[in-house]
Amino acid sequence: MKSLVLEKVNELSLRDFPIEKSEEALGAHDVRIKMHTVGICGSDVHYYTHGSIGPFVVKDPMILGHEASGTVIETGSAVSTLSVGDRVCMEPGIPDPNSKATRLGMYNIDPAVRFWATPPVHGILRPTCVHPEAFTFKLPDAVSYGEAAMVEPLAVGVHAATKAQVKPGDIAVVLGAGPIGLVTALAAIAAGCARVYVTDIVDRKLEIAASLHPAITSVNVASESIADRVSRDTGGWGANVVFEATGSPRAAQGIFEPLCPGGCVVLIGGQSEPIAYDAGAAMVREARVENIFRYAHVFPRCVDMLASGTIDVKPLITRTFEFDQSVEAFEIAASAPPSDVKMQILLPQ
Amino acid sequence: MKSLVLEKVNELSLRDFPIEKSEEALGAHDVRIKMHTVGICGSDVHYYTHGSIGPFVVKDPMILGHEASGTVIETGSAVSTLSVGDRVCMEPGIPDPNSKATRLGMYNIDPAVRFWATPPVHGILRPTCVHPEAFTFKLPDAVSYGEAAMVEPLAVGVHAATKAQVKPGDIAVVLGAGPIGLVTALAAIAAGCARVYVTDIVDRKLEIAASLHPAITSVNVASESIADRVSRDTGGWGANVVFEATGSPRAAQGIFEPLCPGGCVVLIGGQSEPIAYDAGAAMVREARVENIFRYAHVFPRCVDMLASGTIDVKPLITRTFEFDQSVEAFEIAASAPPSDVKMQILLPQ
Amino acid sequence: MKSLVLEKVNELSLRDFPIEKSEEALGAHDVRIKMHTVGICGSDVHYYTHGSIGPFVVKDPMILGHEASGTVIETGSAVSTLSVGDRVCMEPGIPDPNSKATRLGMYNIDPAVRFWATPPVHGILRPTCVHPEAFTFKLPDAVSYGEAAMVEPLAVGVHAATKAQVKPGDIAVVLGAGPIGLVTALAAIAAGCARVYVTDIVDRKLEIAASLHPAITSVNVASESIADRVSRDTGGWGANVVFEATGSPRAAQGIFEPLCPGGCVVLIGGQSEPIAYDAGAAMVREARVENIFRYAHVFPRCVDMLASGTIDVKPLITRTFEFDQSVEAFEIAASAPPSDVKMQILLPQ
Amino acid sequence: MKSLVLEKVNELSLRDFPIEKSEEALGAHDVRIKMHTVGICGSDVHYYTHGSIGPFVVKDPMILGHEASGTVIETGSAVSTLSVGDRVCMEPGIPDPNSKATRLGMYNIDPAVRFWATPPVHGILRPTCVHPEAFTFKLPDAVSYGEAAMVEPLAVGVHAATKAQVKPGDIAVVLGAGPIGLVTALAAIAAGCARVYVTDIVDRKLEIAASLHPAITSVNVASESIADRVSRDTGGWGANVVFEATGSPRAAQGIFEPLCPGGCVVLIGGQSEPIAYDAGAAMVREARVENIFRYAHVFPRCVDMLASGTIDVKPLITRTFEFDQSVEAFEIAASAPPSDVKMQILLPQ
Repeated sequence: MKSLVLEKVNELSLRDFPIEKSEEALGAHDVRIKMHTVGICGSDVHYYTHGSIGPFVVKDPMILGHEASGTVIETGSAVSTLSVGDRVCMEPGIPDPNSKATRLGMYNIDPAVRFWATPPVHGILRPTCVHPEAFTFKLPDAVSYGEAAMVEPLAVGVHAATKAQVKPGDIAVVLGAGPIGLVTALAAIAAGCARVYVTDIVDRKLEIAASLHPAITSVNVASESIADRVSRDTGGWGANVVFEATGSPRAAQGIFEPLCPGGCVVLIGGQSEPIAYDAGAAMVREARVENIFRYAHVFPRCVDMLASGTIDVKPLITRTFEFDQSVEAFEIAASAPPSDVKMQILLPQ
Repeated sequence: MKSLVLEKVNELSLRDFPIEKSEEALGAHDVRIKMHTVGICGSDVHYYTHGSIGPFVVKDPMILGHEASGTVIETGSAVSTLSVGDRVCMEPGIPDPNSKATRLGMYNIDPAVRFWATPPVHGILRPTCVHPEAFTFKLPDAVSYGEAAMVEPLAVGVHAATKAQVKPGDIAVVLGAGPIGLVTALAAIAAGCARVYVTDIVDRKLEIAASLHPAITSVNVASESIADRVSRDTGGWGANVVFEATGSPRAAQGIFEPLCPGGCVVLIGGQSEPIAYDAGAAMVREARVENIFRYAHVFPRCVDMLASGTIDVKPLITRTFEFDQSVEAFEIAASAPPSDVKMQILLPQ
Repeated sequence: MKSLVLEKVNELSLRDFPIEKSEEALGAHDVRIKMHTVGICGSDVHYYTHGSIGPFVVKDPMILGHEASGTVIETGSAVSTLSVGDRVCMEPGIPDPNSKATRLGMYNIDPAVRFWATPPVHGILRPTCVHPEAFTFKLPDAVSYGEAAMVEPLAVGVHAATKAQVKPGDIAVVLGAGPIGLVTALAAIAAGCARVYVTDIVDRKLEIAASLHPAITSVNVASESIADRVSRDTGGWGANVVFEATGSPRAAQGIFEPLCPGGCVVLIGGQSEPIAYDAGAAMVREARVENIFRYAHVFPRCVDMLASGTIDVKPLITRTFEFDQSVEAFEIAASAPPSDVKMQILLPQ
Repeated sequence: MKSLVLEKVNELSLRDFPIEKSEEALGAHDVRIKMHTVGICGSDVHYYTHGSIGPFVVKDPMILGHEASGTVIETGSAVSTLSVGDRVCMEPGIPDPNSKATRLGMYNIDPAVRFWATPPVHGILRPTCVHPEAFTFKLPDAVSYGEAAMVEPLAVGVHAATKAQVKPGDIAVVLGAGPIGLVTALAAIAAGCARVYVTDIVDRKLEIAASLHPAITSVNVASESIADRVSRDTGGWGANVVFEATGSPRAAQGIFEPLCPGGCVVLIGGQSEPIAYDAGAAMVREARVENIFRYAHVFPRCVDMLASGTIDVKPLITRTFEFDQSVEAFEIAASAPPSDVKMQILLPQ
């Protein structure tokens, strides 16, 4: 069976790709998983089109993909919570279990984390993988493979809402209506927000945002100031939380303007350069700023919320491809059509 | 126009009742409100049937009612956020604005709070009242008078979920399927819970609970251990939050059993006697216990959530009475039919 | 008796200065205070030398001074906690008691705050003032007038340490060994820090810092990298808290470098321009950034700590002037000799 | 060399005692430690005099002792932070590194923890032991072996103060002037308390408490109500934190009385029976109750605080014994002379 290999910038191929024996060996605490559905993430596309993200440079051919669901086909001798045949989703980053960050409960910021499809670690657009039981989560019947492959991006939004410490009845602003902005908006509502304003400058993306939940209001910041809008709607008070999900330095400049006194800003979108931080605006509000990196301890929570229906990600899965269309799928994703949110690839079963 | 007066234990009358001039005087920061809808609370019924709650004893005739919505008919000279004709709901407790607790943001535990229908303070089953602007909240069109009169009990549940610091994906248990248990379950889901187990020993109440939201599971603790059920459903881990909403000493004994390590118990139901607190069970889990009293800063949040639909209290309003049926309404409420959750009284307009 | 009046930039005079009757009227909740000791703050000096701070411009003659202690000489009819003869210190900012920020417990960020010696509000280098009881704090015998006049700057440091949520055994870095940096270092130790690194580029200031407490280590960042030093001393982990107390945009660039994973940065020093915020460095540490503005609810806590000796500010009071030397005192302060930390002025008794 | 063996209730012997080979094998992440100083804990004495604590029953001969310091004499192949000759102290509980509680950062409440001198796990009153690097902490020169052997009980107090979230300037009450009460008082001050009231009914213990720090006030509750005293000293407000360190059901009844609105109670002392919890008193204060179990992530923090002098435990070490006096030392400890706080045993070097 084949894997989707990024040979070098702008060159993908679907081909046999041998994985090192050591990575295929099943440890006592591991399970072997047959892949089912893999979502295409912006970072996958960025490696395809640019060959690197910050310090991570693709030097050798690398398998892409890190948003995945599948089926357990073998279990290690010490595995107790999973069985062959279990439908699962997987957390793509594996930390050093003995690091100080991990022991403190913050394994996501352990510098030793090995994360799928981040060079030199391979992704999982391949037939099978071996993964630790502790980072593999059983799916209830109510959660499909497609939804399960959405848990990875959803986890970013849920982690953001958790770090914000959203309280019931909060008003939030999400800057950016890309996939991460949308899952953040859904997570913010699930976490207690009464209303979420989602901003962007592309009308089609704002239409999708507004269609997701009655508590979402779309604002095109090309024609309307989000700070003015929130001020008007809240009697001059402002929003309790502002989520920055654009990664744009320009958007980051205005993060404090819609914020209420004592409010919280969460910086989700990675920024490649230092941003211009309006310290005076932050000071007079005594803003709290949370800087987040991926997620920790969130996957089983996402699975539970999808199962009970308190979050619905199905409308975000806008297109599905067979595995042999993978290269075409990436080409479409790279052209970034605003009408699509999440594209997924189905592996042969 | 008439008021509903508790003359003494077990004796209600609908009659003209003069309010002291000082209470009717409109201060610069006050509004005058014509009442529209008033809910019947368990405490109203308890004063009717017992004449006292703890240290609060009805010594003189007292007007009942504290869950209210209405319409602004006059505004004080300094009022800036409300206008004549505004539809509003009102917070029933008014603290001393200069007390230390109030200045610290905890006005609900200011000992000087004057609370409607808590002797010797009159309630609002009467034609009009004067109330501070700061505790009167404008209703958007999407929130009906009936829903608005539900904000008061809902606020208890929302305050409980806020104090619990519910995180997205938490599993909660609510002990007790009375009105407060039900609003707590709804608030817990709105605050992020993936699933809420509601317990009781009356099947009809459990049926209502289960019908409110797909994330609610009812458990009759007469026939099934809630600790066992939660343990089984969570792989032995337990629930993140346990809300005690029965006020029953017996229920309080088991509050830690369904709780996960590091979890939180919120004691909502007032207890008339010391409870038997299982310190050992609390210790091995490092449980956090939050003891709550009414609510603070929660009313406008509830209004926002009702308006956007993230909480729906309409199914809880199970019966409505005209004002001239008030005495009958209280008699029915006093008989506590399990098929009813909240009864409301409509005042003449 | 005379007041110290800033006539205009660079011109001070000690002269009779009539205060408006309305400000001298004693309300029911007010006390009248005879001034005793007033500290000279950097902001007083800045108004003297520049005539403005940000949006606050001195347009008319204004009395300077806001770090004060004195004696109660008259009490309003409703005052219950203070008596004539009580030695007191006073919080210089008075908020609107009815504002939303005040009711939420965050009166310091109420936009309506009136703050001494911030135009157009007069300061208290004058014989007497009228002040609300709620912002006037009785001194125990163990706290001198001089220490009491230090409570205002100390409160900034204590508020910073409180917002940082310092835990026992934390390692902190304080950027800047000016008066605010030093009180922050003392507050950080009092709040639980095991060790505090104080940085500056002036050796004399660093010597003073190091002399204050055995848990303080001075680092001259002109010759040594604070990030390297902390990394070496903590086995590569970093500091739990970084307090930015320089107000220098250059220092602000490096705030995340000495910080441990999951650590907190507190921005104390006001910045006149947007700062270059290293979002990437903040992200990989999941840094929490607290932006603070003055203080709230901290004065009585400072008085208690001075009284019990858990904080000692006496070494910071490096020079004392008689009131008729006030102009000279400001000239010396404006020349910023690094060997002085806090200069105080004694008013005639 | 010999070990101190609890043969059965009331029978101790100093004799050769073979440890199982598996426990003596040095893993890659382990170090071998030669013991230097071991403190006698109340639990050691309780096993000696009663043979059990709760569910933990001494069925076979068991070595006592869990408060220890020593010297590294051998290091496993993967050990990177410790070297032969390092002076160290050791955390006595070792959790399952793969448990959910451990991964969440709460390893102390992992049910699989193996804790020294808790049957069937041996303690360390023996020549050497093998211990994981992650739970072995290097001592700086400024910390003696005696102080280092105090880290274990100190950690309980520091964990309690951390869980209480003590803020600078808090007023605390510590119920109980035993060793744990005293370290809690010191930890509370180090964590920010301006004043700590320590209660007991034995004057000699209260004298020791009061001698430890000028911020400590002793109150003999046989003759004075702590609630009244705190109320008087705080203008009726109350203490921010109450630490229950007696384990006495009677003391536990009054835990809310001295507490201020919004305050926190920390239950430290283990209780063998359910306690009578005054839910009404807790409710009107909206008390937060933290139930704690040992400590987590606290040892290196304690070492740092001892090194910098922000906590001084030397006055608590009131008597020292040579190892061959161990049985006598336990007999003295079992007679609980109130003039002694902590007795320590020096092993032969």
